[in-house]
Amino acid sequence: MTYKNLFDHISSKKSYLCVGLDTDIRKIPSHLLSEPDPVFAFNKQIIDATVDYCVSYKPNIAFYEAMGGKGWESLQKTMEYIPDSHFTIADAKRGDIGNTSGLYARTFFDPSSSGLNFDAVTVAPYMGSDSVLPFLEFENKWVILLALTSNSGGADFQRLEIDGKPLYEQVLAKSQEWAGADRMMYVVGATQARDIAHIRTIIPDHFLLVPGVGAQGGNLEEVSRFGMNSHCGLLINASRSIIYASNGTDFAQKAQNEAKSIQQEMAVYLDKYCVQ
Amino acid sequence: MTYKNLFDHISSKKSYLCVGLDTDIRKIPSHLLSEPDPVFAFNKQIIDATVDYCVSYKPNIAFYEAMGGKGWESLQKTMEYIPDSHFTIADAKRGDIGNTSGLYARTFFDPSSSGLNFDAVTVAPYMGSDSVLPFLEFENKWVILLALTSNSGGADFQRLEIDGKPLYEQVLAKSQEWAGADRMMYVVGATQARDIAHIRTIIPDHFLLVPGVGAQGGNLEEVSRFGMNSHCGLLINASRSIIYASNGTDFAQKAQNEAKSIQQEMAVYLDKYCVQ
Repeated sequence: MTYKNLFDHISSKKSYLCVGLDTDIRKIPSHLLSEPDPVFAFNKQIIDATVDYCVSYKPNIAFYEAMGGKGWESLQKTMEYIPDSHFTIADAKRGDIGNTSGLYARTFFDPSSSGLNFDAVTVAPYMGSDSVLPFLEFENKWVILLALTSNSGGADFQRLEIDGKPLYEQVLAKSQEWAGADRMMYVVGATQARDIAHIRTIIPDHFLLVPGVGAQGGNLEEVSRFGMNSHCGLLINASRSIIYASNGTDFAQKAQNEAKSIQQEMAVYLDKYCVQ
Repeated sequence: MTYKNLFDHISSKKSYLCVGLDTDIRKIPSHLLSEPDPVFAFNKQIIDATVDYCVSYKPNIAFYEAMGGKGWESLQKTMEYIPDSHFTIADAKRGDIGNTSGLYARTFFDPSSSGLNFDAVTVAPYMGSDSVLPFLEFENKWVILLALTSNSGGADFQRLEIDGKPLYEQVLAKSQEWAGADRMMYVVGATQARDIAHIRTIIPDHFLLVPGVGAQGGNLEEVSRFGMNSHCGLLINASRSIIYASNGTDFAQKAQNEAKSIQQEMAVYLDKYCVQ
């Protein structure tokens, strides 16, 4: 998917919502457990319920891998079910030496390899350029690089200062020098809006994937005010607050209500802060 | 597996060799491609040929994932085939927020979840403590944390200095404060022996997993001289130089010759440098 495709979709939907498919078989409504593939049955209904209110889906790969080969099947069926219009993110936090990252890239980007065809994959920056570049060799595919994460351990290393600048800023700056950096996005935790404002001064144009609105406690208005650029530049992820809005038979309806409510708030912020 | 089990195995085998199962269907001998599961058929023969000369096996998860559900099946069969005596490492470079790392831990450590039962998993440190701790909650299971990697991009961030100390030293020091740190090992690239000597001053007791001897060009004697402690403290990985020693029908025999030759060199270094 191109930058323009994504922005056009955001503009027409008036939404920059990404729905995180962190589907845990231990948490889905019990009436689905008799289905042949409960995880896919759940995802299918979640997708049907939210597809009009979001522009992106982000399966968290750990939840599928934890179920082994069966989990990979559920993931494949889910990916086939998501319409092409939606930007798909493999939240995998991969990153290894070049030839190995090349195989992870094939895993998520090359359907003739693993059967999966994501638009983007999240990548950890610790191993540097040659761990990231193989992902960018795939045309119209995106890397979403970890920059500043919202978890408690995020500060252990990401905020350590090097020549007066925290590590996450070094990651932002250095990665801009890499080939294909125009197809890079960044994971930026939403817990502190002032960080987002600061990050915007370093990378004004790139999209930020912002988790932490919802279960992790970020603030949608602040993130939008400080993070939005003239092409929106934000994908806000919500997972548990949407997909587990109810654990009864009404789970899809409740998920839809939640997604719709976020989308309606987003429409306001797009009018207000996404100024050409 | 316990520290003592591992050291006893090293002592009896006179080997600290880890065989990397980076099994690429595009590289295995063509006569295996007619097998129902060529990757497993290859691994089985490699294991039979090398089991007497190594103490550990390290499947590189990317190579299996790139084949989707079928790859996971080959991985499961491979894991079932490796004898319990051998320390098994999922080279996966995972790491995510706590609940997600918990699922990756289940993936690799809990056979009732994914069918896999590794002794250790490689983890990237970028997201800090709560991305690593869930792996250490599993009894007798190990985390092998990335510290200093041997790839060209390794220097992009790992050698940046914070208060006069490179990031990889901060990772070594900080992670020592975490609960379960006695079940932590570290990935240390073998390209520069002086780095290993320096790292030994910071973490004298922990095992180091050293890739890069072989295809990546490290030096076994130097690494052993500078890296060994009184409980060996080293696992040296060789992948391609062993498993692709030949691509003919004699591949297993050639792999055995290569593993045996490394083991014989290791026996000398154990006598010389592993002094109680």
